[in-house]
Amino acid sequence: MIEVEVKAHAPNLDEIEEKLVQIGALKLREEYQEDLYFNAPHRDFAQTDEALRIRKTRSGNSEDTYITYKGAKMDEVSKTRKEIEVAVEDPLKVGDIFQNLSFRPVATVRKNRTIYTLGELIITLDEVQGVGNFVEIEKETEEGEDTEEALSEIFATYSKIGIKEGFERSSYLELMGIH
Amino acid sequence: MIEVEVKAHAPNLDEIEEKLVQIGALKLREEYQEDLYFNAPHRDFAQTDEALRIRKTRSGNSEDTYITYKGAKMDEVSKTRKEIEVAVEDPLKVGDIFQNLSFRPVATVRKNRTIYTLGELIITLDEVQGVGNFVEIEKETEEGEDTEEALSEIFATYSKIGIKEGFERSSYLELMGIH
Repeated sequence: MIEVEVKAHAPNLDEIEEKLVQIGALKLREEYQEDLYFNAPHRDFAQTDEALRIRKTRSGNSEDTYITYKGAKMDEVSKTRKEIEVAVEDPLKVGDIFQNLSFRPVATVRKNRTIYTLGELIITLDEVQGVGNFVEIEKETEEGEDTEEALSEIFATYSKIGIKEGFERSSYLELMGIH
Repeated sequence: MIEVEVKAHAPNLDEIEEKLVQIGALKLREEYQEDLYFNAPHRDFAQTDEALRIRKTRSGNSEDTYITYKGAKMDEVSKTRKEIEVAVEDPLKVGDIFQNLSFRPVATVRKNRTIYTLGELIITLDEVQGVGNFVEIEKETEEGEDTEEALSEIFATYSKIGIKEGFERSSYLELMGIH
């Protein structure tokens, strides 16, 4: 799976939500996410632009955990990259396995995320603790598929919700000064 | 969790099963297991005596997947070692994550396992494809707890089911000549 994804600074998320509703986006859910990022013993993910994390999500009474691997970004304008995510039973056990394999925890990112859909797009509004507010528009494509079309659709949607600048390729980790 | 565990060659598993029933062991379940073992990019698990695997199990209509990490053996007579196991959603995605982190698949072990309990002991009868038939008696203890008592109980149970020799510290992987 390739995740074609563009992020933008958006200090006023309420304003963005109003516009999303106007253009027909549907709210999927709100959740609290806590992401624990690891670095590898045999290469520096800050150099290779990869990421490995354990994500805990909480939405109402439901708690879930995922392992996510992200490959290096694949172009110069978007955050398009390989992403593999798998649900797991227990965040502590997974963290323990990673640490026994000599992967080191480097940072935790905490955020409130509100998720909308619009056609095949996923639009997320993030309040990230200590970092700021952001919109992210994403489309999933298969490996080998052309990503240009997805990018055009994403930027056209940004335009409709009034965002023409403030795009950000740095990850929340990088914005926190970690890598 | 520390797994105190002793394995023995047992060509005739039917005979062992009869004796287990005689001493009051209860059959828990039978399952087919397929274990895909990985080696690390930054150290050789054959040297460090660690293991990382993805286990798929099938029992009736139910299929499950687990990630398991095993630390080095902690004494000279048993297979006692740290073990961390966590259920995951999808074996292919986990394998894909491991391979993107440069962990390499080294071997697959396939077996039919029948599992009994006797008090706090877990007794497994394994028919391992290409390797042979084995009994394994295991007791879980907490880290820091004395493992001597568990070992005595395990060897006393072996004696009751007529096994006094043929103990085997090598893993199925090692017995397959892999490591």
